[in-house]
Amino acid sequence: MIFSSRLIEDAVDAFSRLPGIGRKTALRMVLHLLKEDKEHVAHFSDTITRMRTETCFCPQCNNISDQGLCSICSNPMRNRSIICIVENIRDVISIESTRQFNGLYHVLGGLLSPLDGIGPDQLQLANLISRLEAGDVEEIIMALNPTIEGDTTVYYISRQLKPFPVHITGIARGVSFGGELEYTDELTLARSISKRLPVSTYVNTDSNT
Amino acid sequence: MIFSSRLIEDAVDAFSRLPGIGRKTALRMVLHLLKEDKEHVAHFSDTITRMRTETCFCPQCNNISDQGLCSICSNPMRNRSIICIVENIRDVISIESTRQFNGLYHVLGGLLSPLDGIGPDQLQLANLISRLEAGDVEEIIMALNPTIEGDTTVYYISRQLKPFPVHITGIARGVSFGGELEYTDELTLARSISKRLPVSTYVNTDSNT
Repeated sequence: MIFSSRLIEDAVDAFSRLPGIGRKTALRMVLHLLKEDKEHVAHFSDTITRMRTETCFCPQCNNISDQGLCSICSNPMRNRSIICIVENIRDVISIESTRQFNGLYHVLGGLLSPLDGIGPDQLQLANLISRLEAGDVEEIIMALNPTIEGDTTVYYISRQLKPFPVHITGIARGVSFGGELEYTDELTLARSISKRLPVSTYVNTDSNT
Repeated sequence: MIFSSRLIEDAVDAFSRLPGIGRKTALRMVLHLLKEDKEHVAHFSDTITRMRTETCFCPQCNNISDQGLCSICSNPMRNRSIICIVENIRDVISIESTRQFNGLYHVLGGLLSPLDGIGPDQLQLANLISRLEAGDVEEIIMALNPTIEGDTTVYYISRQLKPFPVHITGIARGVSFGGELEYTDELTLARSISKRLPVSTYVNTDSNT
């Protein structure tokens, strides 16, 4: 694409470096912003800059935070005796959006993957241990992806947590709601048969944890 | 989606107001920028703001410009005797990208569309007339979309230009290169048969206009 304006070209380049955005989509965004008020575009840029400069990581759970402790750790209504371990902040957003979990989180920042050079030192585990040493925690929920890396990480963390008197659980695995058995992969289907549950648990929906 | 950070939520909202961007894609962009250097993100925001505040419209052709006359109008190598009339700056970018046109442009900023309330007063025609009055122009190429609005606009402008001794042409219409006759719409195919050309013009590619 040939642009007659250097400023437009720079803006298209900037947008097209974002994930999943090609130059045609970037141009569409730039032309959209060109039609907007100057104040609106200034506000857009300011929002992006502030998002990067003013956010920090929660010193307790490593979640993203506007200042100091994140809004989840500092919320007095949350159940401090349950910690849900997740890979990244995207998973925190996903679980929060279900509105089914009222405990606290711990964001690892990755999963163990020796092939990619990610060992235990790259995970944020030190402050998890200190949270457990404080003694309030009764249950740890492992909410990691059901992959080899996820399972390896679950195994490693479970061993690290052995000295503490906590109940370690993992999220349920099986056939998705609304899914069809025909299109479910063999491993999931086989496990969902071997780990079958009493039908009464299907309807007996627990209140929020 | 529930975010534990107000700043992240604002940034996702800002991105998701862009055309074609949903909240999931917006979150992906925000998390990408969160991982980048602060300087990089500041540069990104600055590029967007400058694109909106420092660009202006070329007083001669209404194309977008970094300052005063646009880079096409101010380029002494361009052929000043041919003006290509287009609907918007997106069309300028498309035609420039072909590298086949070396004349100047005139951006209308829209097409006549009585149903949408767009009449001749909404089009940027005054400075086209004054360019023709200067007397250097020999040919006007109508490069408007082949729609009812495009054809109406071509007809209107042709009538306005009658007093001037210029040659008025339109871009060729017919079957696309690489297209298949089977999938070409009937109107295009019928017109491409009635407006058939000597086969010699297929191979005799003209040098740049």
